Amino acid sequence: MKKYFAEFFGTFWLVFGGCGSAVFAAGFPELGIGFTGVALAFGLTVLTMAYAVGHISGGHFNPAVTIGLWAGGNHTAKEVFPYIISQLVGALLAASFLYLIVTDKDSFESLGGFAANGYGELSPGGYNLTAAFITEFLLTMFFLLIILGSIHRNVPKGFAPIAIGLGLTLIHLISIPITNTSVNPARSLSQALFAGEGYLSQVWLFLIAPIAGAVAGGFIYKTLFDKE
Amino acid sequence: MKKYFAEFFGTFWLVFGGCGSAVFAAGFPELGIGFTGVALAFGLTVLTMAYAVGHISGGHFNPAVTIGLWAGGNHTAKEVFPYIISQLVGALLAASFLYLIVTDKDSFESLGGFAANGYGELSPGGYNLTAAFITEFLLTMFFLLIILGSIHRNVPKGFAPIAIGLGLTLIHLISIPITNTSVNPARSLSQALFAGEGYLSQVWLFLIAPIAGAVAGGFIYKTLFDKE
Amino acid sequence: MKKYFAEFFGTFWLVFGGCGSAVFAAGFPELGIGFTGVALAFGLTVLTMAYAVGHISGGHFNPAVTIGLWAGGNHTAKEVFPYIISQLVGALLAASFLYLIVTDKDSFESLGGFAANGYGELSPGGYNLTAAFITEFLLTMFFLLIILGSIHRNVPKGFAPIAIGLGLTLIHLISIPITNTSVNPARSLSQALFAGEGYLSQVWLFLIAPIAGAVAGGFIYKTLFDKE
Amino acid sequence: MKKYFAEFFGTFWLVFGGCGSAVFAAGFPELGIGFTGVALAFGLTVLTMAYAVGHISGGHFNPAVTIGLWAGGNHTAKEVFPYIISQLVGALLAASFLYLIVTDKDSFESLGGFAANGYGELSPGGYNLTAAFITEFLLTMFFLLIILGSIHRNVPKGFAPIAIGLGLTLIHLISIPITNTSVNPARSLSQALFAGEGYLSQVWLFLIAPIAGAVAGGFIYKTLFDKE
Repeated sequence: MKKYFAEFFGTFWLVFGGCGSAVFAAGFPELGIGFTGVALAFGLTVLTMAYAVGHISGGHFNPAVTIGLWAGGNHTAKEVFPYIISQLVGALLAASFLYLIVTDKDSFESLGGFAANGYGELSPGGYNLTAAFITEFLLTMFFLLIILGSIHRNVPKGFAPIAIGLGLTLIHLISIPITNTSVNPARSLSQALFAGEGYLSQVWLFLIAPIAGAVAGGFIYKTLFDKE
Repeated sequence: MKKYFAEFFGTFWLVFGGCGSAVFAAGFPELGIGFTGVALAFGLTVLTMAYAVGHISGGHFNPAVTIGLWAGGNHTAKEVFPYIISQLVGALLAASFLYLIVTDKDSFESLGGFAANGYGELSPGGYNLTAAFITEFLLTMFFLLIILGSIHRNVPKGFAPIAIGLGLTLIHLISIPITNTSVNPARSLSQALFAGEGYLSQVWLFLIAPIAGAVAGGFIYKTLFDKE
Repeated sequence: MKKYFAEFFGTFWLVFGGCGSAVFAAGFPELGIGFTGVALAFGLTVLTMAYAVGHISGGHFNPAVTIGLWAGGNHTAKEVFPYIISQLVGALLAASFLYLIVTDKDSFESLGGFAANGYGELSPGGYNLTAAFITEFLLTMFFLLIILGSIHRNVPKGFAPIAIGLGLTLIHLISIPITNTSVNPARSLSQALFAGEGYLSQVWLFLIAPIAGAVAGGFIYKTLFDKE
Repeated sequence: MKKYFAEFFGTFWLVFGGCGSAVFAAGFPELGIGFTGVALAFGLTVLTMAYAVGHISGGHFNPAVTIGLWAGGNHTAKEVFPYIISQLVGALLAASFLYLIVTDKDSFESLGGFAANGYGELSPGGYNLTAAFITEFLLTMFFLLIILGSIHRNVPKGFAPIAIGLGLTLIHLISIPITNTSVNPARSLSQALFAGEGYLSQVWLFLIAPIAGAVAGGFIYKTLFDKE
């Protein structure tokens, strides 16, 4: 059970911290943290919880990562489903807390897009479906290469959370303008449920593209890099 | 005595560096560091002093952390009180130096809110009491999970100050707009004393919520994660 | 073959992530990441892939680095050419993907300068040829000092990707206004091919200056620092 | 001789990178790196060169640090003078290169204050002499506590450059508005020589206050923390 609690708390933290920084702080007048601050926040959620509970569950906090690690031969099949359930519950609970907090201000008017992902008209920079799909696919693929590479037995112990966490920061620095950056189906689903119908009808892309990219990353790593 | 000096200097540095960056540099015209810079500064105060004196005192620099570690079974009861005294003295002295510096300019007009914490009308983004309490509680709770997890014997030695320091950066990236971010009663008290009556009448929340959250974090960690 | 794939994927990531963050996110209205975010992104591409595949290929991702390491006595002559080919293919493919994504928006009008390097009229800050040459030469020279120093046997294992990656971040913090920062012929060539004739006619400088600086760095390190 | 070359190159890099980022990139329209980027740049100059040549010379790159380490019992008296000479030569040469580059643009009009330090009318935020002195004294004192603490034998090997480099970043996040941040007489002198008479007549403070603070830091560390 310990490992499911680890994934629950880790994914809660990823959504509460990453999406929370976007919702509360990104656009604050003059002093706001902008995309750079949000990118840093997402990465640090993973860096911090990977140090805290990574030795318990592996520190996935993301269904695409769990599936990609399984594809890369680093996670047993029977643990895939319970990990994803733990992650989804954590993400949804975190989104509920964000909703509770963001609506508790006298000046509250509307949720806007919460921190949901989108393409076309719902892309921050107006990027279309193809751009969104390629971007989410490629970035999740490289995320898995970074994860599988940095946890490899030939890499000195203890540095993986830095590589993986800051890798997620990098991914956000590139792609917030394109899709608001998912690479994580649990994160996307949790926000789309609150952000409304338009976002919900696009959420399929943020389930399929990250998972496909993660599987590709796991397969590439296993095929090209992980043999003697 | 060494460990009390370590807590004194560490908490002085946290308040002087974290609150100082907010007071001096956050809103500087055009080139100011904004919330991102302040978040970085707070985190780096802890990262740097945790490397410097963490091996002496544990590197708490925060009464809520001391109490949470006691709740998590990582700190003896009889050391709680002298640690908190050392932290309060360090925080107050640092705030006095900040006051000395900030008033020593020809154009000085008013202290504004110093770097004090608040809710409702004194929240940077106008968040109400409930939002403030939930936020401070949850963030301090996760701060303790990060601390207890990253100092665990199964985590490679030497990385904890990175996880904990950047964890405090992350906490600020999320919540400066909500409460100006406390998670630390010593930091809050030291600023409220200079910021004036409005802030002083709200300071109770920044004593209670972080301590309650820290105790919850310590308890959750001990119960869920720290058994064989 | 493993090491050529490592250089291919690493250089793809450097161009896709570094140049991609510049093209997509640097100038986004109000929330954009600016030069600081781009500098962080470039550095993190190297930090992440150096952890992931550095133990396979050494993690150069840059023809100037490969040549400089050869000059410093850390890379065999016969591996220089195939490394550079792998890097160039990775860089060009990444640039193609960036082109595909950036043109897939309804509001797309022109490529602008993509993320190409330039001097004189094509320098972001209007710096002339001499300034550009000195800057690229010096920065690549120091980049090699940092690389050769941090991988030295006397430095604790595992930290080199942090020093090297954040060294590249630092290099960008200094010099984006001057040349848009190259220090990497593969990165420069890949962007110039898409950015148009003006940039192509200047690309020679970003081949020669980084390589000359890297050779100087390798030579200085070998001569001054790497003897008993 | 190796160690003098190490201090020469390290201090060159500190001034070229730190002051260079301020001169070239801080105030670039819209995309500039601001005080946060300059703070990051200064810290990364030390982080990178401390990894690269720290095992050769100790990685001071700063006369105040050399003197403070001597006061703290970590540096022999006869090495103080040659270290400072190496640092001053490196700083002055770096400032000359910065001058060469910054004047090589068609639109060049004036040097402004280069990246010089100042108080009163020459303080970025208009802070007076007392504020400037206290700030420089305290920050250099804590810089020495961080250095002496993080290189202590009880701290895991390899992390000191992170603590020290990011400590310098933190110091800049706090104090650029007050004095433009010195804590380093070599850095201050190198800039004042180019910035003109007003700055030169104030440079005494940036020689005395950092050195006094460093001696205090070394003495405090030796007295309070470095005994069994």
